[in-house]
Amino acid sequence: MQVVALLTDFGTEDGFIGAVKGVISSINPSVQFIDITHSIKSFDIFEGALILNATYRYFPKGTIFFSVVDPGVGTERNPIAVQTKDYFFVAPDNGILSIALKNEKILKIVKINSKDLLPERDTETFHGRDIFAPAVGYISRGCPLELIGEELNDYIRIDFPEPEVTNSYLIGEIIKFDKFGNGITNIKELPPFDEIEINGIKIKKVVKGFLEGDKGSINLIKGSFGFYEVFSPKESAEQKFNLKKGDKIKIKLKR
Amino acid sequence: MQVVALLTDFGTEDGFIGAVKGVISSINPSVQFIDITHSIKSFDIFEGALILNATYRYFPKGTIFFSVVDPGVGTERNPIAVQTKDYFFVAPDNGILSIALKNEKILKIVKINSKDLLPERDTETFHGRDIFAPAVGYISRGCPLELIGEELNDYIRIDFPEPEVTNSYLIGEIIKFDKFGNGITNIKELPPFDEIEINGIKIKKVVKGFLEGDKGSINLIKGSFGFYEVFSPKESAEQKFNLKKGDKIKIKLKR
Amino acid sequence: MQVVALLTDFGTEDGFIGAVKGVISSINPSVQFIDITHSIKSFDIFEGALILNATYRYFPKGTIFFSVVDPGVGTERNPIAVQTKDYFFVAPDNGILSIALKNEKILKIVKINSKDLLPERDTETFHGRDIFAPAVGYISRGCPLELIGEELNDYIRIDFPEPEVTNSYLIGEIIKFDKFGNGITNIKELPPFDEIEINGIKIKKVVKGFLEGDKGSINLIKGSFGFYEVFSPKESAEQKFNLKKGDKIKIKLKR
Repeated sequence: MQVVALLTDFGTEDGFIGAVKGVISSINPSVQFIDITHSIKSFDIFEGALILNATYRYFPKGTIFFSVVDPGVGTERNPIAVQTKDYFFVAPDNGILSIALKNEKILKIVKINSKDLLPERDTETFHGRDIFAPAVGYISRGCPLELIGEELNDYIRIDFPEPEVTNSYLIGEIIKFDKFGNGITNIKELPPFDEIEINGIKIKKVVKGFLEGDKGSINLIKGSFGFYEVFSPKESAEQKFNLKKGDKIKIKLKR
Repeated sequence: MQVVALLTDFGTEDGFIGAVKGVISSINPSVQFIDITHSIKSFDIFEGALILNATYRYFPKGTIFFSVVDPGVGTERNPIAVQTKDYFFVAPDNGILSIALKNEKILKIVKINSKDLLPERDTETFHGRDIFAPAVGYISRGCPLELIGEELNDYIRIDFPEPEVTNSYLIGEIIKFDKFGNGITNIKELPPFDEIEINGIKIKKVVKGFLEGDKGSINLIKGSFGFYEVFSPKESAEQKFNLKKGDKIKIKLKR
Repeated sequence: MQVVALLTDFGTEDGFIGAVKGVISSINPSVQFIDITHSIKSFDIFEGALILNATYRYFPKGTIFFSVVDPGVGTERNPIAVQTKDYFFVAPDNGILSIALKNEKILKIVKINSKDLLPERDTETFHGRDIFAPAVGYISRGCPLELIGEELNDYIRIDFPEPEVTNSYLIGEIIKFDKFGNGITNIKELPPFDEIEINGIKIKKVVKGFLEGDKGSINLIKGSFGFYEVFSPKESAEQKFNLKKGDKIKIKLKR
């Protein structure tokens, strides 16, 4: 079955995502819906981009990603559909795709504006339902991107906060907490180091499994988002050590 | 695939909705489940009716709606199945269908009571699993409503709080907040007006897109529920202006 | 369609369960996913075992249960797959299956360790995605358990808190609250009794339907988890009577 994977900040309480899926299955009754998450913080494009990037590569080839965190709904920002070598992405052109697309071979980008495919609407508040869902529906039926809208040359990027490198330090930061209170940093590879600290607290251990960490301390592990994470075994490091998004992790380089 | 759309106040933490889907797919292994929401406030029939009405028309023809907010579970209230020109609705007869059904051409209503189709049970606490789910399962396999139970002539309605009209004012109210803190009112059409206010605060702008609204002020927009919504761009109007359900919106008519 | 039912403590905000489903549908594109819950309290194996047991029997024969609450991820605990007469269970061997398996006829247990089927990985933090999901994918395609890994003789059990029996009393306790604030106890059958109390408060009525209960009082009902539940009609008994997990319910036996 054709998989449609969905990532939004719509929440699950108001039925928004139900309406989106209804529209898609009205166009194509045999898609497989897989929810990535609908709990992105309202309007938080960066978090959406981060989680899309952490998950999309685990989906079957040909998956269509409905990726809608859209603070600019109803404005000039373009609704776009992107075809890469392996996937399709449908989203507002506001950067939400930009972390994932960095790894992908892009074949085509279009602005979704075909008058033939989009329903008439009397409100500009819900493009998820009225623009992005029909686009996903038609793409899932094999409709070529040329018919979805006019071609674009490029897409909007957002800044990913890269770690800072000095003579003696690599300085990263916490970019997100997960459900378990682990703090995901922006550090992908760990250089040889003398010492690591966060908020003046020394990192006890760098480990491969959570339970190898020192209990009641902050430890470091390569996590499932593809980044190093600070954690405390079987408890929330976020709460225990009062960590915040943006907190710096300082890695003193080995000399 | 046959779509079964589900709207309940069961929450997602206790596995209730999993058991319901298990029962349905035991009867019919090839349905497509689409969750509308399971986060209706416990026992809030009105909110359930509102969200069902806002979403059902976006689903494919033939969709079966499992709509269960059921404070009277285990009492005399009837479990019913309703066939309309385009859809099926399965629900307790407590008004939850009544806003949606106002728009639909009803073909048949039955009380779900076939002894042949319902499992024996030793508890009356979970009709969602033990009565409504089997009914949905058999309807999804094409079982005619006649076999589900005996015909009824009518169904229960709940009062929708219609706006009040005076000589000089149209007075509506907030009936629900969505996830973004937008306040959905009961006003469907806006008459020519001189001024609009809510809780003594003047509505700044009536707009077509959220970002056209005046930042930090209360604005008005025709929203995706089919009603006008009060909002503040990129923030929660509910929190910012301390709005409450039931707050009156006063529209001074143009003279 | 082959049903895969999922129960975890992964939450729904980080996309973890999306990645799991992506991996499974990459291996088998035609499974039907049904979420039981992903809101088990982090690391709470007992609650996971309880909800799995309350729901699994409502699923079609042949359903594969992805049951992952896994505080020991990355340690020596075995990842296992269990085939029973009617179902398959895939889980860490930490007791999460043990309440459900007590009712099932076990045909085979294996440790999931086939090098051929599992992807290489650079982190041991997400066995849900990297070990359990591939196992489910291959089992769903009919791969025999022999190929998933080596056979085991037994599985880990957790203690279920059985009610205490004295000369004059049966003493149970609250083991979980549901979304409605009903307190699920560990009592399955009610002996002939003179009186029942909880925290010094007398149980007013033992009823078959919630609304037969005495309003504003604590009542008792055989609930959908298969256990007796304390409740107060149309309100949260948990909040109203400040009940807690572990609170004792004392049933004075009839003499």
